[in-house]
Amino acid sequence: MHKPAWHIPPHRNPQLNARGELNHLLSIDGLPREILTHILDTASSFLEVSDRDVKKVPLLRGKSVFNLFFENSTRTRTTFEIAAKRLSADVINLDVGRSSTAKGETLLDTIDNLVAMHADMFVVRHAASGAPYLIAEHLHRIGRSDVHVVNAGDGRHAHPTQGLLDTYTIRHYKKDLTNLTVAVVGDILHSRVARSDIHALTTLGTGEVRAVGPQTLLPVAVEKMGVRVFHDLSEGLRDCDVIIMLRLQNERMNGALLPSAREYFDCYGLTPKTLALAKADAIVMHPGPMNRGVEIDSEVADGSQAVILPQVTFGIAVRMAVMSILAGN
Amino acid sequence: MHKPAWHIPPHRNPQLNARGELNHLLSIDGLPREILTHILDTASSFLEVSDRDVKKVPLLRGKSVFNLFFENSTRTRTTFEIAAKRLSADVINLDVGRSSTAKGETLLDTIDNLVAMHADMFVVRHAASGAPYLIAEHLHRIGRSDVHVVNAGDGRHAHPTQGLLDTYTIRHYKKDLTNLTVAVVGDILHSRVARSDIHALTTLGTGEVRAVGPQTLLPVAVEKMGVRVFHDLSEGLRDCDVIIMLRLQNERMNGALLPSAREYFDCYGLTPKTLALAKADAIVMHPGPMNRGVEIDSEVADGSQAVILPQVTFGIAVRMAVMSILAGN
Amino acid sequence: MHKPAWHIPPHRNPQLNARGELNHLLSIDGLPREILTHILDTASSFLEVSDRDVKKVPLLRGKSVFNLFFENSTRTRTTFEIAAKRLSADVINLDVGRSSTAKGETLLDTIDNLVAMHADMFVVRHAASGAPYLIAEHLHRIGRSDVHVVNAGDGRHAHPTQGLLDTYTIRHYKKDLTNLTVAVVGDILHSRVARSDIHALTTLGTGEVRAVGPQTLLPVAVEKMGVRVFHDLSEGLRDCDVIIMLRLQNERMNGALLPSAREYFDCYGLTPKTLALAKADAIVMHPGPMNRGVEIDSEVADGSQAVILPQVTFGIAVRMAVMSILAGN
Repeated sequence: MHKPAWHIPPHRNPQLNARGELNHLLSIDGLPREILTHILDTASSFLEVSDRDVKKVPLLRGKSVFNLFFENSTRTRTTFEIAAKRLSADVINLDVGRSSTAKGETLLDTIDNLVAMHADMFVVRHAASGAPYLIAEHLHRIGRSDVHVVNAGDGRHAHPTQGLLDTYTIRHYKKDLTNLTVAVVGDILHSRVARSDIHALTTLGTGEVRAVGPQTLLPVAVEKMGVRVFHDLSEGLRDCDVIIMLRLQNERMNGALLPSAREYFDCYGLTPKTLALAKADAIVMHPGPMNRGVEIDSEVADGSQAVILPQVTFGIAVRMAVMSILAGN
Repeated sequence: MHKPAWHIPPHRNPQLNARGELNHLLSIDGLPREILTHILDTASSFLEVSDRDVKKVPLLRGKSVFNLFFENSTRTRTTFEIAAKRLSADVINLDVGRSSTAKGETLLDTIDNLVAMHADMFVVRHAASGAPYLIAEHLHRIGRSDVHVVNAGDGRHAHPTQGLLDTYTIRHYKKDLTNLTVAVVGDILHSRVARSDIHALTTLGTGEVRAVGPQTLLPVAVEKMGVRVFHDLSEGLRDCDVIIMLRLQNERMNGALLPSAREYFDCYGLTPKTLALAKADAIVMHPGPMNRGVEIDSEVADGSQAVILPQVTFGIAVRMAVMSILAGN
Repeated sequence: MHKPAWHIPPHRNPQLNARGELNHLLSIDGLPREILTHILDTASSFLEVSDRDVKKVPLLRGKSVFNLFFENSTRTRTTFEIAAKRLSADVINLDVGRSSTAKGETLLDTIDNLVAMHADMFVVRHAASGAPYLIAEHLHRIGRSDVHVVNAGDGRHAHPTQGLLDTYTIRHYKKDLTNLTVAVVGDILHSRVARSDIHALTTLGTGEVRAVGPQTLLPVAVEKMGVRVFHDLSEGLRDCDVIIMLRLQNERMNGALLPSAREYFDCYGLTPKTLALAKADAIVMHPGPMNRGVEIDSEVADGSQAVILPQVTFGIAVRMAVMSILAGN
């Protein structure tokens, strides 16, 4: 029987060191509220760095940060590369698809080699849920807790920096989370963003978190994550303060789970009309890249309630905060 | 009816800011002589930097320069990467072919995202004429005149840094342009280099600019660009001071426009014999990469009149000058 | 008749300048013992840099180092990139497979262009034996002895930094080489690593160097390299101090030279049982990436006698030493 990777029990969560400090960022699940708040507060202070004339601080100077993207994502890799360079780190992008793993080397042999080259941090993206955990546990086993792992997205499991930047964005616009209603809309079943968002929002005590989507695109027993389920978009959006639209993966569109992109848009696409059901000052978020006309109408995406580009700006600050905290600054 | 992109009227040219200073480098066409001269003069001062033991100046320190090469060109990307690094910028190469655009994101969504990451400059290469204009106009529309665009080659339209470095080279070897005869030879129809060269040379008051090539490879009404047309190579080269050979794109060679590479070489290839028709001190230029034995004989390419490699050296200095001027130094 | 590239006579060896100093690192063959010792001693001093909090020294600041990998190798490229960045150089990775060479430009035209951009150093990997020699001789011919070449592996010819790091590793663990017995095991015929190891070890006066492998995977007249030949693994390992296992290239496994990977492992794979024939304190080396279960058993690869990961660490220091010496520090 399939046991989802996101059910890894907290006591095996290797994210914290013996003093309870963040040693790896693998998942929002299992992180205490204090650590999330510390990251968000630190990000605030980095937001200003990207506005400077010289966008650079020397906090990671002389550190070697490796981008290990086993699954290709130019945009996410770029955000980590920028964040690391603004911290003055040496960044090495490994085109892992074409490297030694292709020559039959195991993932952990690759890691051992990079550790032997004195790597300080791995930013890992992998199609398999749990790959960053595997690496973190291996580092623990070989006694190298001075090398840090940041999960940049693993399978359907987690995308913790996205969860953090989304929370940062909400906190930025809405201040107090306790009275908010936040709707996460779309393909929650396949979305690591949704899972990380939901964990971050519930940990920080958000008033109500809603999961809105068709039955076929919601995980079984999703209620156990602390969300209220809606299959009807209008009901799900009613009186919301925040709407997080998820990207519909192209590969789902012609599959068995969905009739067609057009029909999806008719039922779950965010339009000015459905947006009007939310509160008048509701904000609209999207992790990008957007499928305009599939999950979101261009009028909404470019409208005054959208905060999709500020999310990107906050994302750099959040990643600088995470890297800086892990490196012990 | 097809209206060539290079007929964008000057009053819509978004290259200059309200004070008449260079804000983007999109095309030589539409730039006043003073700005061209200012770039060339600035390049002179950067030439010395690449000769230093420590080839670095801090003018772009902490700036984020994005190489957006929608059309692959390792060589041109490398020249911009070197120029930016010698100015101490953080350079991020985006492998755009494999990025979000492939996931259905629009060009302007990609730009908006990078602007949200606090990009300072985009170096753009695109197979479509006008793509860098589109980006510059978008930046103007969203009020971000602090973000700059450098056109690194767009379709058949323009390759302005090549036009500038070619002009720099001519000025370096021949000083005064007003009495010179310059022949541009080859496939002018498909060449953005030719268009940028011709605009730069005529703007700077070159004595005579000649367009030399077969009828099928010259634009209709090319005379309107201020050139004298020759279909015969010998006549076109006679008494020239400067010969700019164009690269014959491989894809033209077996097409309807040309009988064969061999026949092209016989009619339009530069050999010691045809070179002898030009002035004794004529210089030979080529934007590279050369097709030896197609548009140019190896004896000429490696001969004493060739200044093809100095063009490359000057190209770095010109790109440093452009980036530095755009960044406001 | 085929004349192996590694028979290039020493008097044509362009590695040394007129004062006998290292100007290029192309091959261990032809280098005097003093230079090898100087590189190893310099590497010692760089080992400490990678252990610092700020892993950076300014020795190559403002220098432009080009990684020219005509043959793909993410791992080797990464080691040179890290080494150069820790020396503060500007590193430019050229994806040569997709560059101008693909547009018909010759190798030396590419080199001429990069020299014109003020390159300081080329790190070259090429499938053809002798390619880095060709580049070095060209640089000599054009009078540019200030530009340096490091061979990062050429065909079956040489991989000198691997030879140096292997020697460094042996010296680190065993101090004096004169009384040692070192076995090089596997596909020596196709291995540039083996050739560089053997040259380094014999030049430094190693007691006995053994070449162990099947007749079909040993070069003709391998004894002339100063090694003792063994076809039987047990005999070859008996009383050894050092065992260097070679990677079996996948492409050999199903060819005419070898019956199967399984049979190879049975005859030449290093297992705890065969390792026991060597001295009790023998060390086990491998250039990586390993084929576990083909040339080496996992129990040995991960065992207490393996020094495979220290090899990687020393490799960074050795490459920093080579680059620093070439740059004249």
